[in-house]
Amino acid sequence: MTAEHLIESVSVNKIFGGWHKQYSHQSKVLNCPMQFAIYLPPQAANGKKVPVLYWLSGLTCSDENFMQKAGAMRVAAELGIAIVAPDTSPRGDDVADDEGYDLGKGAGFYVNATQAPWNKHYQMYDYVVNELPALIEATFPVSDKRAISGHSMGGHGALVIGMRNPERYSSMSAFSPICHPVTAPWGKKAFTAYLGKDKATWQEYDASELMRKATTHLPVKVDQGGADDFLVEQLQPEALEAAAKASGYPLILDIHEGYDHSYYFISSFIEDHLRFHAEHLSK
Amino acid sequence: MTAEHLIESVSVNKIFGGWHKQYSHQSKVLNCPMQFAIYLPPQAANGKKVPVLYWLSGLTCSDENFMQKAGAMRVAAELGIAIVAPDTSPRGDDVADDEGYDLGKGAGFYVNATQAPWNKHYQMYDYVVNELPALIEATFPVSDKRAISGHSMGGHGALVIGMRNPERYSSMSAFSPICHPVTAPWGKKAFTAYLGKDKATWQEYDASELMRKATTHLPVKVDQGGADDFLVEQLQPEALEAAAKASGYPLILDIHEGYDHSYYFISSFIEDHLRFHAEHLSK
Repeated sequence: MTAEHLIESVSVNKIFGGWHKQYSHQSKVLNCPMQFAIYLPPQAANGKKVPVLYWLSGLTCSDENFMQKAGAMRVAAELGIAIVAPDTSPRGDDVADDEGYDLGKGAGFYVNATQAPWNKHYQMYDYVVNELPALIEATFPVSDKRAISGHSMGGHGALVIGMRNPERYSSMSAFSPICHPVTAPWGKKAFTAYLGKDKATWQEYDASELMRKATTHLPVKVDQGGADDFLVEQLQPEALEAAAKASGYPLILDIHEGYDHSYYFISSFIEDHLRFHAEHLSK
Repeated sequence: MTAEHLIESVSVNKIFGGWHKQYSHQSKVLNCPMQFAIYLPPQAANGKKVPVLYWLSGLTCSDENFMQKAGAMRVAAELGIAIVAPDTSPRGDDVADDEGYDLGKGAGFYVNATQAPWNKHYQMYDYVVNELPALIEATFPVSDKRAISGHSMGGHGALVIGMRNPERYSSMSAFSPICHPVTAPWGKKAFTAYLGKDKATWQEYDASELMRKATTHLPVKVDQGGADDFLVEQLQPEALEAAAKASGYPLILDIHEGYDHSYYFISSFIEDHLRFHAEHLSK
């Protein structure tokens, strides 16, 4: 049985000459069925292996939000980049959950949980870094050239995963990332639940801590809305900027006046991110 | 009291240098509170009056679907066109409804209902043609240059409204319109309820019937997905094509192989529609 037989088609739509497809598959590391979306640009139909941008979404999202709202596929079709959007947590009736929108389902925070009851399924870090790319690369006409990006909780995920695995990615970027979760309410709540009270274990999931200690410099671009309601308390781009300064990390960080936390902001600047990744993916 | 005081802000988002805004207002012709969305491109902030594209959405939609999913605002920002997206029916607890998704709320079909209980609120034709543009033009920095477009039920609405009011619009367009509702299941169900059993009254809401009799030729562009599940039974573009041929109406109609009925199709071709309208709005 090839990897192709391990996934099941959920939906198919033609868009910008390529194909948006949703699949379900049984995840071994998450221990549950998962759904993901992939955009295959027109170039992928010509027997050419295209590079892949992994997109990590924010709290409450699924594989659908980015594909429906970001307006990314127009540019991906032009540049010949596939986009893969995983879900934001394990799913299913037997998966632990919480009443809050910021913990449990829809809020996996891209960590490997060590604490019960979360550790049975919440292994999103391993899923995004290893299991999903292996499945994608065994199934679709894609190369092993990868970039990673995301929004909010997913921006945190993209920066953490990129900095901890610079050999696996050509570049990373983020919109409105949770830059310093160890001091942000969202991060403290999630990390306490998933990782426990020992804050030493939190450091490896904090973009600012990682950037402060980084010696390898993966190309990175961050955009943040200046009118984002979560800016001061939850997102803290100034912590990332200070870390970059301390370690000499060449961070591109732009604050855009008037823009908020929504997909209206992401859609306004996604083209810049795709062109940034295309430049590094082609090297 | 100016018109500006008659509307209430619901939300504001910056996008592509302009502003997406949602408002609620009390509609006189619909006899209920209504919500609409407007995109004001950057040019509208410079004291310049910009033209307006009215977008009519399809069954089950609100003012939000097009604004979130079509990717239109990037091009509208470049071209300096405002976009107004009304809701698809009257709303509220005292508005008549039906169990089906294709009748009642979310399914106003852009007609003036004559039959009880629908005639109390379902006057979407007058709302879109007269009341809403009057409000928009009294409130926002827009000119009286108008274009109209829509999808599916909204494509039907755009073609009908454009052909019946060619003096009010510079151009009209549609994605996957219900071209011949008097013979389509959706149209027959809705028109029977809203207009009654006398089919003579249905003719003035049928794009193919109007095109067959038209003497004024408003510029028109129609795009249709070739893999649209509703193509044969509900949409019938061949009826519109036959009508155009019979009356010499210069119809631009393109069938796009592989595309379906979704916003993935609309987003792939919305730029062409905006440039088409911009050309005629600038005349």
